[in-house]
Amino acid sequence: MNIPEPLELLIEELSKLPTIGKKTAQRLALYLLRSDQAYVDKLTEALLNIKIKLVACERCYNISLDSLCDICKSPKRDHKLICVVEDINDIIAIERTNEFNGHYHVLGGVLSPLAGKDADSIRLKELIDRIRNSDVTEVLLALNPDTEGETTSLYIAKLLKEFPLRISRIARGLPVGGNLEFADEATIGRAVLNRIEL
Amino acid sequence: MNIPEPLELLIEELSKLPTIGKKTAQRLALYLLRSDQAYVDKLTEALLNIKIKLVACERCYNISLDSLCDICKSPKRDHKLICVVEDINDIIAIERTNEFNGHYHVLGGVLSPLAGKDADSIRLKELIDRIRNSDVTEVLLALNPDTEGETTSLYIAKLLKEFPLRISRIARGLPVGGNLEFADEATIGRAVLNRIEL
Repeated sequence: MNIPEPLELLIEELSKLPTIGKKTAQRLALYLLRSDQAYVDKLTEALLNIKIKLVACERCYNISLDSLCDICKSPKRDHKLICVVEDINDIIAIERTNEFNGHYHVLGGVLSPLAGKDADSIRLKELIDRIRNSDVTEVLLALNPDTEGETTSLYIAKLLKEFPLRISRIARGLPVGGNLEFADEATIGRAVLNRIEL
Repeated sequence: MNIPEPLELLIEELSKLPTIGKKTAQRLALYLLRSDQAYVDKLTEALLNIKIKLVACERCYNISLDSLCDICKSPKRDHKLICVVEDINDIIAIERTNEFNGHYHVLGGVLSPLAGKDADSIRLKELIDRIRNSDVTEVLLALNPDTEGETTSLYIAKLLKEFPLRISRIARGLPVGGNLEFADEATIGRAVLNRIEL
């Protein structure tokens, strides 16, 4: 038996999604086939709506319902502090902590020569224009603590040298609730170097 | 920041899918947000089409474009042999082997008192009616080799006692390419009991 074309097509489209392999796609497609019409309708409507209703904030490139996102519009947020992140995912993660009250800037990637990402393909020019035309006093770099993130952080720090700014980076150290015994040397090393006086 | 409603809604709908947790749903939703309109359109169309174009085969309950599925319609398949499976998934898996040339019967579940599945909620009556009104000579039970699958197999075998049929069950044994050393005792035990003369 060949899988009927409509199902085969859905499996194909689903398996293009990240973390979804061919087998999971098949499982999802069969689940959707069995589930009621109301659910499939709600899912397709939700899918179409993100494209219709959401745009990128014209200032920080966060997702937004209007030309400016909730964070950029809020009078309660400190517009002198900009947190630079790779992706919208990272904004959601940082917002969940309730520890940051500034604005954001979404780069849309990090420098990665192997993946063909250079300084022009991430939003660095937009960041510099934004800093030039505002009274920003601190830029917090919140990129992933991996090679590409570190490289990008150093590159941005160097680029921003010309402005009278405080440039900071999120701390490296032991994860809260973690265990010293099981942490890797690089992390413990950073935690020792970046020790904080009590 | 609250996640904008359209995105939140999509995350909610996606996380209802099996194997998709809240975090994966968020990742998928953001991927969909970034992907181009053409892909989202194709995905939603594929989703809607499975509901519009596919029906259950009225004889075996396989998925089908018409009232009878490709297998039930094919003159090349042996209609005297029925393979009983739990789900459409299983038909796809068995068809991929090219080792089976009979028809199927999809139960739509197995007996599971804890999950509230009794003999009336799986398609047993339909199976018996089908056998009664045809010249079927063999029923092959291909349910999962777990407690519920085994129980259901035994139950069906008992039910079908009244018909002059050969009732078989797919073999248990060592998986092809497997390693005797690492197989569990139950599997090795079955492989010994069900040994085949060469």
